[in-house]
Amino acid sequence: MSDTLRVAGGAVLHPDFTVSDGDVLVDRDAGEIIAVGDTPAGDETVDAAGCLVMPGLVNAHCHVAMTLLRGYADDKQLDAWLQEDIWPAEAELADGDIRAGARLGLVEMIRAGTTAFADMYFEVPEVVDAITEAGLRARVGHGVVTVGKDDADAVADNEEALSVAREFNDAADGRITSAYMPHSLTTVGEEYLREFVAAAREADVPVHFHANETEQEVEPIVDEHGSRPLEYAADVGLLAEDDFLAHGVHTTAGEIELLAESGASVVHCPASNMKLASGMAPVQAMREAGVTVALGTDGAASNNDLDVFDELRDAAMLGKLQTGAADAVPARAAVEMATAGGAAALGFDSGRIEVGANADLAVVDFDAPHLTPVHDHVSHLAYAATGQDVRHTICDGEVLMRDREVLPFDEAAVREQAAQRASELAARAGE
Amino acid sequence: MSDTLRVAGGAVLHPDFTVSDGDVLVDRDAGEIIAVGDTPAGDETVDAAGCLVMPGLVNAHCHVAMTLLRGYADDKQLDAWLQEDIWPAEAELADGDIRAGARLGLVEMIRAGTTAFADMYFEVPEVVDAITEAGLRARVGHGVVTVGKDDADAVADNEEALSVAREFNDAADGRITSAYMPHSLTTVGEEYLREFVAAAREADVPVHFHANETEQEVEPIVDEHGSRPLEYAADVGLLAEDDFLAHGVHTTAGEIELLAESGASVVHCPASNMKLASGMAPVQAMREAGVTVALGTDGAASNNDLDVFDELRDAAMLGKLQTGAADAVPARAAVEMATAGGAAALGFDSGRIEVGANADLAVVDFDAPHLTPVHDHVSHLAYAATGQDVRHTICDGEVLMRDREVLPFDEAAVREQAAQRASELAARAGE
Repeated sequence: MSDTLRVAGGAVLHPDFTVSDGDVLVDRDAGEIIAVGDTPAGDETVDAAGCLVMPGLVNAHCHVAMTLLRGYADDKQLDAWLQEDIWPAEAELADGDIRAGARLGLVEMIRAGTTAFADMYFEVPEVVDAITEAGLRARVGHGVVTVGKDDADAVADNEEALSVAREFNDAADGRITSAYMPHSLTTVGEEYLREFVAAAREADVPVHFHANETEQEVEPIVDEHGSRPLEYAADVGLLAEDDFLAHGVHTTAGEIELLAESGASVVHCPASNMKLASGMAPVQAMREAGVTVALGTDGAASNNDLDVFDELRDAAMLGKLQTGAADAVPARAAVEMATAGGAAALGFDSGRIEVGANADLAVVDFDAPHLTPVHDHVSHLAYAATGQDVRHTICDGEVLMRDREVLPFDEAAVREQAAQRASELAARAGE
Repeated sequence: MSDTLRVAGGAVLHPDFTVSDGDVLVDRDAGEIIAVGDTPAGDETVDAAGCLVMPGLVNAHCHVAMTLLRGYADDKQLDAWLQEDIWPAEAELADGDIRAGARLGLVEMIRAGTTAFADMYFEVPEVVDAITEAGLRARVGHGVVTVGKDDADAVADNEEALSVAREFNDAADGRITSAYMPHSLTTVGEEYLREFVAAAREADVPVHFHANETEQEVEPIVDEHGSRPLEYAADVGLLAEDDFLAHGVHTTAGEIELLAESGASVVHCPASNMKLASGMAPVQAMREAGVTVALGTDGAASNNDLDVFDELRDAAMLGKLQTGAADAVPARAAVEMATAGGAAALGFDSGRIEVGANADLAVVDFDAPHLTPVHDHVSHLAYAATGQDVRHTICDGEVLMRDREVLPFDEAAVREQAAQRASELAARAGE
């Protein structure tokens, strides 16, 4: 007899975006949904009265340990912000900082109903340990940069990324997978991309990278290669079906077609793109072309939180602004990108409430003034709810937050340790 | 001996945007701040440990009773949305609906730290009664539309607006003031604007109206009058120093200069402008020209919540997108617009924590993962906090929310009544 959990008494958001009253029964051993609607009782019950049970949100592009730099520097152009603030601070990261920052970010994500994410950063084993503690699902990788490095260092950085990808491609009972993560098309040299993307294919891991984020990043590629960035990406072996790239802000119709043909996914990071004045990605056009679009917060330093409900709202809002059409990127599209789209981009069988899918759920409390009345649940998810409306978070069949209490961590201790380390880090960086 | 309240043990946001540990002492009879910093004890204490005490937020453009239509229709172009959904539903508003919707919106605003707002709607006495119960500060008015009406009806609508403005210009012990509120430059005929704006001057009430919201609204004015909308506005007698207009999305450099010279204020409604695909107001240019800019949510049907923290974040984000410069509309500017800017636009001596100012305060709880670490309090207000982080709300010296409990209303009853009425309204409108 399997160990079951029933999420009981709420309304359920179905994959076709209809909503009906019903329960969700979960097999905790398998981490799967085994019944939806009128289900038998479970060994344990989570109360969802007054709530909408929805798929857990997916944060498909993050640098989770950067929570330590939340609010450290804002309101600066990308280049100056990186060179004057972020990189000097990151150079001062001490042993244990990444673990502490990751834990803080994981607590924050659990509190906002996020159940899966992709993470690109350094010291991946530290991040993996924190994710294992947290119980979330993730695709992780080591961010490679070769510009400014000699060949030996550049190769070593790539080899670390590959080694990490091989090591963690099926960690934490399969909740953790990996990718080879060259930082971007301009910060990793062509020869390394060609060599290590091929190696990633042999290792059977996908590739995640930043692309087409700013105008300033697109121009040198066009100048050097005579082709658009995503044409260059395809030429060096990127854009396989399970690859996913962050941003895609400055993307032409031809590049969108290339994406659609390739099956590679785009992670739209609307808040980060606004905050760094990067621009608005053509999300409506991408979706119309059949591109899989996911949502990401990017790091907390350029957002400044890890609440995917913000991205969901921003995506719906910017979709309209970018096209000039108020019917572009409707609420359903935004919710789809934050759930099924994200799961597809990261290769997880999550993002939908259906028998057989991973039991990754967010239970959103609709008994709140800003979610009253309920003419349309899906509209509220896009235009009125925030991560703070999430009452319970369940990942892989395990309850990670119950009635706003985060279970895998001592939340106050995590906050205190992160605050202490962030303060010391800022002091070192400011010296 | 006056009756005092001490907001104790927190950090205080000062008008120059510095933050220091300290208390705020309030004279509850006068509704004023009487000491800041190292203050004597009060007759009553509100605990602010771990919190930032900031000026209450100002929502300078709202249609508060529209909470009943939150999520009723979304993702449609402005014209279709108004004509097919919003206006037919509003035509079905029954006795008591506006009161119920206003109460819901007031509860929502109190929960998000908003202490003052401007409201344009119908049945103003009902709205005034609800505001009086709530204890908030507001400038209210009756929205006039003359297009599609015969002269007698058009005059009657204007006269109601003036009469309401005269009646409520110093209601609820001075917490409620009023304005003459012609809906917009295209929905009220020129002859009525000329006549009733002059009458508003005689009645000594300011004028609040929508202007330059969409391209479609600007064109007919340019065609008919051969001048930009705000030139036309000035010509009919608008743009006095205490007038304030909503939106100003499509505003030329010449119009910005006109605004700066006039002293009239602009209420930037970034969420509504995105959701209805109206565009991005040139807020950075307005501020550089010396225009007073406030923030507004607009009605809940085009937002879809009344949390000014969202507008604060959106204003900072769109400021960057609109200019292409990540240093435009920095966090401080956004916080200033949401507090002092809003208070200036509405003519209240609020929006700053200083001896002599109105005791309108929001106490924001920073002991939260998404607000950790605290490198910069003001950054967090713009980029990470939401209205749900507000722990206490104080207006005119009275505590309206303590530890997330809204005191003037039975919150559950307000939600239930609004939900019931919204459901019946939707049923009538859908018949």
